[in-house]
Order: sequence, then C-alpha cells, then structure tokens
Amino acid sequence: MQTKGELTRERIIREATYLVSRKGLGDTSISDIISATGLKKGSLYFHFSGKDALSLAILEKSRDEFMIFLDFSLVGNTPGECLNNFFEEVMNLHKNAGFAGGCIFGNTALEMSDKNKEVSVFIEGVFAEWTKKIQKVVKSAQALRQVRDDISAGILARNIIAGIEGGIMLARLGKNEKQLRDCLKSIKMLIELKIRTG
Amino acid sequence: MQTKGELTRERIIREATYLVSRKGLGDTSISDIISATGLKKGSLYFHFSGKDALSLAILEKSRDEFMIFLDFSLVGNTPGECLNNFFEEVMNLHKNAGFAGGCIFGNTALEMSDKNKEVSVFIEGVFAEWTKKIQKVVKSAQALRQVRDDISAGILARNIIAGIEGGIMLARLGKNEKQLRDCLKSIKMLIELKIRTG
Repeated sequence: MQTKGELTRERIIREATYLVSRKGLGDTSISDIISATGLKKGSLYFHFSGKDALSLAILEKSRDEFMIFLDFSLVGNTPGECLNNFFEEVMNLHKNAGFAGGCIFGNTALEMSDKNKEVSVFIEGVFAEWTKKIQKVVKSAQALRQVRDDISAGILARNIIAGIEGGIMLARLGKNEKQLRDCLKSIKMLIELKIRTG
Repeated sequence: MQTKGELTRERIIREATYLVSRKGLGDTSISDIISATGLKKGSLYFHFSGKDALSLAILEKSRDEFMIFLDFSLVGNTPGECLNNFFEEVMNLHKNAGFAGGCIFGNTALEMSDKNKEVSVFIEGVFAEWTKKIQKVVKSAQALRQVRDDISAGILARNIIAGIEGGIMLARLGKNEKQLRDCLKSIKMLIELKIRTG
C-alpha cells in the first residue's frame, strides 16, 4: 500500500505532467501546479526541492509510462506485425488525446535543448532507449524479410522516430489526424513493411 | 531608402526573432525585447500593438526568409540534384548555427499548437507552402526516375519534412550533427534519390 505522502507525490507529478503537456515546461509555474493540486506551497516543497527537481520527476514518470506503452504496443506474432501494431497504437494514443499535448519528450526537446543541459541529456536518453527498442524489432523483421534490409536497422529506427515526431508536430497544428496517418503510412511504405512472412 | 522607423521596426523583429529562437515564443517577454534592443517601451509599442502582433511579425519575417532559403537551396541541374542540394543546405544551416535555435516553425508549432489558434494556422500555412515546393520538385524528379514513383509526391514531400523536423529535434538535443546527417541520409535512401538522370 502506498503511504499518503507517496500518493500526494504522485498526484503532484500527474497534475504537473498534464500542465506541462499543455503549456510547456517553461510556461508551467510552481503556482500553476499549486492551484491545480489544491496543495499548500509547503507541501509541494516537502516533496520537491524546486522546479528542476519536479521537472525531472515529471520526465522520469513520463519515460517510465512511455516504455510501458512501447512494450505493450510493440507486440504481434511477427516482428513486422509488432511494428505495425506500434504504428497503430501511436495513432490511437494521439487520436484519443484529440491531438493535444503531443509528445512530451519532443516538446521538451525543442523547448529546452538550448536552455537546460540536464533535461536535454535526459531526453536524449529517452530517445536512445526508444531507438534501441525499435531497432531490435526492425533487425528481427529484416531477418524475416519483413522490412527492407539494404539500410541498417539503426538508421531505419532513427528515421521512424524522426518521422513520428514530425508527424505528431504536423497533426497537432491542425488537430488533424490525416497528417500523422500519412506520415505513418509513408514510413511503412518506405521501410517496405510486411506483416506476414514469406 | 528605408526610413528610420522602418529600420527600427526591422531591428525589433530581428532581435525578437533571435530571442524567440533561443527561448521560445512563450518565454520571450516584451521586457526581454526592450532590453535586447535598448529601445524605450513606447517606441516598441509604437511599432507593435503588443506581443501577439510582434509574434506574427516575427513569424512572417521568418517565413519570408525561409521561402528565400528554399528557393536558393532547391537548385541544381536536375530535380534530383535540387533535392540533394536542399538537404545539404539544411545541414549547413543548422551546423552553422551550432544546432542552436532549430526550426522556428517546428519550435513554435510544438509550443503553441494547443494555445494560440492564429499562430497555429499561420505555421500550418508555412508547412503547407514548404510541402508544396518540395512536392513540385519531387514530382519532376519522379518523372525523370530520380525519385521512386510508387508513392505519391505529396506523401514523400510530407515524409521529407517530418523527417527533417524530427532530425533537427534529435540533433539539437545533443548538439550533434550525426543525428541530422543520419536522418537526411535515410530520407535520401528511402526516397531512392538519384542525382543524375538515367
């Protein structure tokens, strides 16, 4: 069972994550978070020494959830099917969110790359972990001729992730699923994805 | 000859653009711009009614410059060579900037998509114009068999732009040109770009 303190800490992170996904990290103030949670200032500072500590806690929690999302969406009977399901789940995730919020790592990357070294390094790590997971499945898919094998799995994985981030960017602008759908479709065509073997 | 007022207006936009590219639109205040230009508050408000008007002026100026960049970089003896030069110039642009700042349209897209409708619509327009220019060259390249023609020029153009935006995002995080170079390389391989005909 979680202690009351742990529950409060989680609630702060949850509310703060929501605000950051809508307003950006720079634009979300400690007072915004206090208003959203209804907590007293002292209670928030009991859990987090300041905005930097809270920011990293938000990103860590988001990373953990995203890695779970990856493990649950990169599934299927063949590696090609795993990739296809992953693309579908990316689409569903953003569609269900009404194309609001986008990708917290992409958003924070663009917002903080030139401002906060610690945050940049953390997000680089998330993208590296994401790339590694995709690369592993692409490699298996290549071995079964479900993905083209004339380009290395690492390069394909990076292109998939860059294309998804760009697609989310375009879809969010117009709250239009077509933009992300087209990006995902073109990624599949470009990597020559086949779901079945043979 | 430009009047003193026009020169002041341009200087405000130039300094404000620099700040926005480093700090983001939301985080750049009117006082920051006043400090950067050394102007009096009244002088700034003489040229711009407020932050919204200035923001749009920054984006318009950036769009005009970007369209000139596109026209000057999408050049070559064949459409394939045009695309190849464009990719090179994208790389040079961001390398020369030390991978700081990134793409003002991508940054502002992620920052403002859920916050400012007018800005979102404007940036959608920039991406649409960019897509159209690339699509036109891709179409010509397809006719000469310099780009694969089993995927429509529109889808390829969108994938190119999404991939570039994603690549800039990854390169900025680590101030590492390899990330953008790999993205551009994989785009070229995936669209099967040939520089020469036949």
